[in-house]
Amino acid sequence: MSKAAQSLKNEPVLLRDSQDGVVTLTLNRPKSYNALNGDLLDALSDSLDEIENDERLRVVILAANGGAFCAGHDFKEIQNNRSETYYRELFSRSSELMMRLAGLPQPVIARVHATATANGCNLVASCDLAVASTEARFAVSGVNYGLFCSAPSVGLSRNVSRKRAFEMLVTGEFIDAETAKDYGLVNRVVSPDELDAEVHALAATICSKSRVAVATGKRMFYVQVEKEVRSAYEFADGVMASNLMTEDAEEGVEAFIQKRLPVWKGP
Amino acid sequence: MSKAAQSLKNEPVLLRDSQDGVVTLTLNRPKSYNALNGDLLDALSDSLDEIENDERLRVVILAANGGAFCAGHDFKEIQNNRSETYYRELFSRSSELMMRLAGLPQPVIARVHATATANGCNLVASCDLAVASTEARFAVSGVNYGLFCSAPSVGLSRNVSRKRAFEMLVTGEFIDAETAKDYGLVNRVVSPDELDAEVHALAATICSKSRVAVATGKRMFYVQVEKEVRSAYEFADGVMASNLMTEDAEEGVEAFIQKRLPVWKGP
Amino acid sequence: MSKAAQSLKNEPVLLRDSQDGVVTLTLNRPKSYNALNGDLLDALSDSLDEIENDERLRVVILAANGGAFCAGHDFKEIQNNRSETYYRELFSRSSELMMRLAGLPQPVIARVHATATANGCNLVASCDLAVASTEARFAVSGVNYGLFCSAPSVGLSRNVSRKRAFEMLVTGEFIDAETAKDYGLVNRVVSPDELDAEVHALAATICSKSRVAVATGKRMFYVQVEKEVRSAYEFADGVMASNLMTEDAEEGVEAFIQKRLPVWKGP
Repeated sequence: MSKAAQSLKNEPVLLRDSQDGVVTLTLNRPKSYNALNGDLLDALSDSLDEIENDERLRVVILAANGGAFCAGHDFKEIQNNRSETYYRELFSRSSELMMRLAGLPQPVIARVHATATANGCNLVASCDLAVASTEARFAVSGVNYGLFCSAPSVGLSRNVSRKRAFEMLVTGEFIDAETAKDYGLVNRVVSPDELDAEVHALAATICSKSRVAVATGKRMFYVQVEKEVRSAYEFADGVMASNLMTEDAEEGVEAFIQKRLPVWKGP
Repeated sequence: MSKAAQSLKNEPVLLRDSQDGVVTLTLNRPKSYNALNGDLLDALSDSLDEIENDERLRVVILAANGGAFCAGHDFKEIQNNRSETYYRELFSRSSELMMRLAGLPQPVIARVHATATANGCNLVASCDLAVASTEARFAVSGVNYGLFCSAPSVGLSRNVSRKRAFEMLVTGEFIDAETAKDYGLVNRVVSPDELDAEVHALAATICSKSRVAVATGKRMFYVQVEKEVRSAYEFADGVMASNLMTEDAEEGVEAFIQKRLPVWKGP
Repeated sequence: MSKAAQSLKNEPVLLRDSQDGVVTLTLNRPKSYNALNGDLLDALSDSLDEIENDERLRVVILAANGGAFCAGHDFKEIQNNRSETYYRELFSRSSELMMRLAGLPQPVIARVHATATANGCNLVASCDLAVASTEARFAVSGVNYGLFCSAPSVGLSRNVSRKRAFEMLVTGEFIDAETAKDYGLVNRVVSPDELDAEVHALAATICSKSRVAVATGKRMFYVQVEKEVRSAYEFADGVMASNLMTEDAEEGVEAFIQKRLPVWKGP
């Protein structure tokens, strides 16, 4: 093994960097196209545990190193562990992670610089927001390997309309970044050299808001969206009334009336 | 207070005008950007009560006076009544109104000539149809004031796909009219001087249909859309069989066979 | 009756042709714009029964002869049988057919060469995939005849967002093929002379996949899409773990690792 390869081997599978309330998690298995093996799923889950309770952190950016964003599950790991029980447990951990992203109080922005395939495409779908480079491409390509992307279809079909999602799932074909934006899978597409600026501008916009309003609203959003309309309104009305009693909302409404910028109290 | 201001103060908060089966409700609090205070919510609710039972009325146009379409809740009213109970009751009245629009037998067309923000954006989302001027803009901007647009997210996320809705909610940023059309929040976008003609052409198209078919179908639509597919079909099949037994459907089907225009019987 | 007319009368209402695992069902009531009368519903249902259990068949193409794709229900049949019981039974058979398309293990591609109206538009919506000619047009036009397209709204509103679907339903107006693609009602639009090539290329892509993966995935897709997200993941995870234990998935994953094309075992 070369020195460089040895050094790579000792690197953590997930890098973490935070600055000004924005924490960046970087998938760091570039040689495996950032495939979500057990170690990486664990590292992501552990990081989210810490982030969840840190009120100084306001936004999570999910990025990746190397030539791909994320290739989904790790097929070598899968082939080395042929057991339905093992697979169920693996997929369950992955699905819990996808739901954790929605459950986190901080908005999560996928920074998609390159291809996102299979469960990697679901990872993008499962983030609250996504900014893609024009070089990014998206596929749910398990069907090419005899494995229909069933779990990834859950996130995908909650972002992309039915016939489009089904076409992607059954053909395994790539869509480019502009098509992904048109389909609603990503929010913004920019050139590769504008990607960081765009992601950080979006993060900064979110950081400028009241933390409690954002956290409250994000939690509310994914609950209401699954309810029928009357229950959704009852739930949202209660959350909003409670939100309005916070110091930040009192300050924000007062600032609006006085035509000045609000100054948030809380962390 | 100037005479003009005094005169404005005595004007009703909601204007009503009907012609040829089309009733236009015009939000008339231009100085408050047509914010939905308690008076305006009451006036809207009362008007819908009357309209609901008037079979001569076939379409409702929801319009607004002044420089904005609707700014959502009235922040001065909110600040003057700091109580969670008050807020819950206020939001509940608003949400009932939004659901009333879907429950009304007549289709409701939003005529959006200018900005629709926060619950004003939800008002547009809650109409059956919307025609916007190129000068209209849309935002769910409560997050800018420490108040995440929770209740507005209910209507918005039933019109606009998930990541787009979440981006609007968490950034508070405006989208223009063409983007709103692309997102499915409005049906048509025309220049300001074509707005009335477009709205009235759409209303006239609806007036040319059988009243009972439109009323039956509208009620059916919002019920079936929340059911799982089998229940939705069972429900829709029953409604359609019953619709087919009406005089208007008998006439319509006969007219189709005879290749002539139908003549509706009922009001 | 001319000889040609006599010959037409004796032709079956549904043609069936299969080649290389692709079965084409062709609606063959061109003089009635392929209206779905009882005979045609029966013929479609019988064909799907046979196809469902034939593992050699991998894709279904739903095509039509004549100047229209499908005009929906047969208004002459409807007018000759004025009874609510009759109508309920007719609509129930039709809705069962629409749900059968989703329940079939083989993907179904609508080949839409011309207008699809009312329940004919729902037929397109109910296929998994749709390829349209630039000459195709789509409407849910029952409202023009006093009969709101209630049952067709079920399929339509699960493909097309709310305000767009409602506009189509309440105006009865046509949208062209490009708009249908933009709305998500069809996947691809090509010129009339490219239609067959495009449909068969899409079919061939699906035929190149593992049969068991496609069948498993299709069944899974329409079940998960109606569940809330946690139940959807639990269901999809189980299906995917089971899918992964098949010979085809073992071969596919191995082929991926070995960077070669997989060779499927099963039919």
